[in-house]
Amino acid sequence: RNAPAGTAGKEPFLRELRRIKAYLASSRPTAVNLFWALDRMEKRAETEEQVSGPAMSGVLLREADAIKRDEAAVSRQIGEQALTLLQDGWGILTHCNAGAAAMPPYGTALAPLHLGAARGMHFKVYAGETRPLLQGARLTAWELQHSGIDVTLICDSAASIVMKQGRIQAVLVGCDRVAANGDTANKIGTSGAAILAKHYGIPFYVCSPLSTLDLDCPDGSGIVIEERPAEEITERWYRKPMAPAGIKVYNPAFDVTGAELITAIITEKGIARPPFQWSLKALF
Amino acid sequence: RNAPAGTAGKEPFLRELRRIKAYLASSRPTAVNLFWALDRMEKRAETEEQVSGPAMSGVLLREADAIKRDEAAVSRQIGEQALTLLQDGWGILTHCNAGAAAMPPYGTALAPLHLGAARGMHFKVYAGETRPLLQGARLTAWELQHSGIDVTLICDSAASIVMKQGRIQAVLVGCDRVAANGDTANKIGTSGAAILAKHYGIPFYVCSPLSTLDLDCPDGSGIVIEERPAEEITERWYRKPMAPAGIKVYNPAFDVTGAELITAIITEKGIARPPFQWSLKALF
Repeated sequence: RNAPAGTAGKEPFLRELRRIKAYLASSRPTAVNLFWALDRMEKRAETEEQVSGPAMSGVLLREADAIKRDEAAVSRQIGEQALTLLQDGWGILTHCNAGAAAMPPYGTALAPLHLGAARGMHFKVYAGETRPLLQGARLTAWELQHSGIDVTLICDSAASIVMKQGRIQAVLVGCDRVAANGDTANKIGTSGAAILAKHYGIPFYVCSPLSTLDLDCPDGSGIVIEERPAEEITERWYRKPMAPAGIKVYNPAFDVTGAELITAIITEKGIARPPFQWSLKALF
Repeated sequence: RNAPAGTAGKEPFLRELRRIKAYLASSRPTAVNLFWALDRMEKRAETEEQVSGPAMSGVLLREADAIKRDEAAVSRQIGEQALTLLQDGWGILTHCNAGAAAMPPYGTALAPLHLGAARGMHFKVYAGETRPLLQGARLTAWELQHSGIDVTLICDSAASIVMKQGRIQAVLVGCDRVAANGDTANKIGTSGAAILAKHYGIPFYVCSPLSTLDLDCPDGSGIVIEERPAEEITERWYRKPMAPAGIKVYNPAFDVTGAELITAIITEKGIARPPFQWSLKALF
């Protein structure tokens, strides 16, 4: 009742905002840019004065729009940076989805492919299907096909043979979090692709917006790996269960690719190369 | 009409046998022990004299039984040989199925696990699900669970993280063909597991009956890799297609693991170690 005019309902609004923020944050422990966006929204709400709860919605909607515009610029810049490392006609392996669904309009790892295609470059993309949730088959393959980019779907376990056959000149992946030393968390299987790339002498590039760099996290050992339900592997998508009832399952959704396996980390502000503990800091 | 008594119908029988043999041989270009067994059956039929076509069936059935008994002895011997390389409590990664369905009663790569379990050893087995046909999920996981062996199902792309976490002390796989230099064809993904094992310093063992060694094949470049239909990746097993219609797919069913990635090749006659071009020959 003693609240100044215009701030009526702000405290209840902030309480509710924080409840929702915590719920959204709990959806994925690995992804640091989710927390970054949620923090930015909360800070906007906190610093906004003289605004009633309902009016706050408009303020936050504008902030969300601003985040979207900023992200689009970041996506394009990552694409431009990455494109400097690729050549027309190259075969590119990617894993999971790092496209428009992750960051409109072009994504992160897919941004240089979209930009390059728009400029008449022809990449031959191999998309790992990305078990168990098949983001490569369902999202990456669809998105690239939709854009008229030459894309071939493979099982994750075929990454080795396509590299050995000389079909791949670069691996491009997105990421959920990059630690200060360059260790990178991304969809399960990414670290395996990086080890294969190193074995075959193929450059391995991580596309990461600055919002996904976590310089407070010294290395990959501090990154929590989300474990997901067994059912994703044994039953989901299938007509009937494809493993015996009661089988023990280990389903980590992410893994950490050691910095020593990464050729470069591509951000909207530039390309970081080893030693990453220096090159990443220099981007800020 | 001039055929000696007892050989009536032998030539038509042999013609039909060869037709069926060619059909069976066409089912899998990679597997040399299939050809070996078919050749053995044909030779038995050819060398059998004074036997009419119908009676020949009995001869061949006895030959098939003899092959089965021989294979069972081989399975046990491979198990015994492999067991000398493993320790109680070890974590074992395997890929695809190299169990009883491949060679009764114990398989090849699974033989030491069955034998060890029967002697009170406790292995912790991680079975890669083995996309796209899921032999790891459908066969290996079932077979080991059925035998009371501690088995955990993982996506193929989780092989890297379980190795990094220290859960795996040895990789054990079967094979479809081993060339004279030790290059080994096996289910798609095997070469990737071998590269990961090398990266993490984990021994990589191939279990191979002598019938699967192909000393006439100098190296892996001569091994034909079977390509299988796109539908296995995009539709099979699923309630609905899990990739966009018309997507390009590359589905090689096998890959070749370079000899330099293999710690040892375990046969019923002994364990071959590098350089394999000498150690494999010495087994015959």
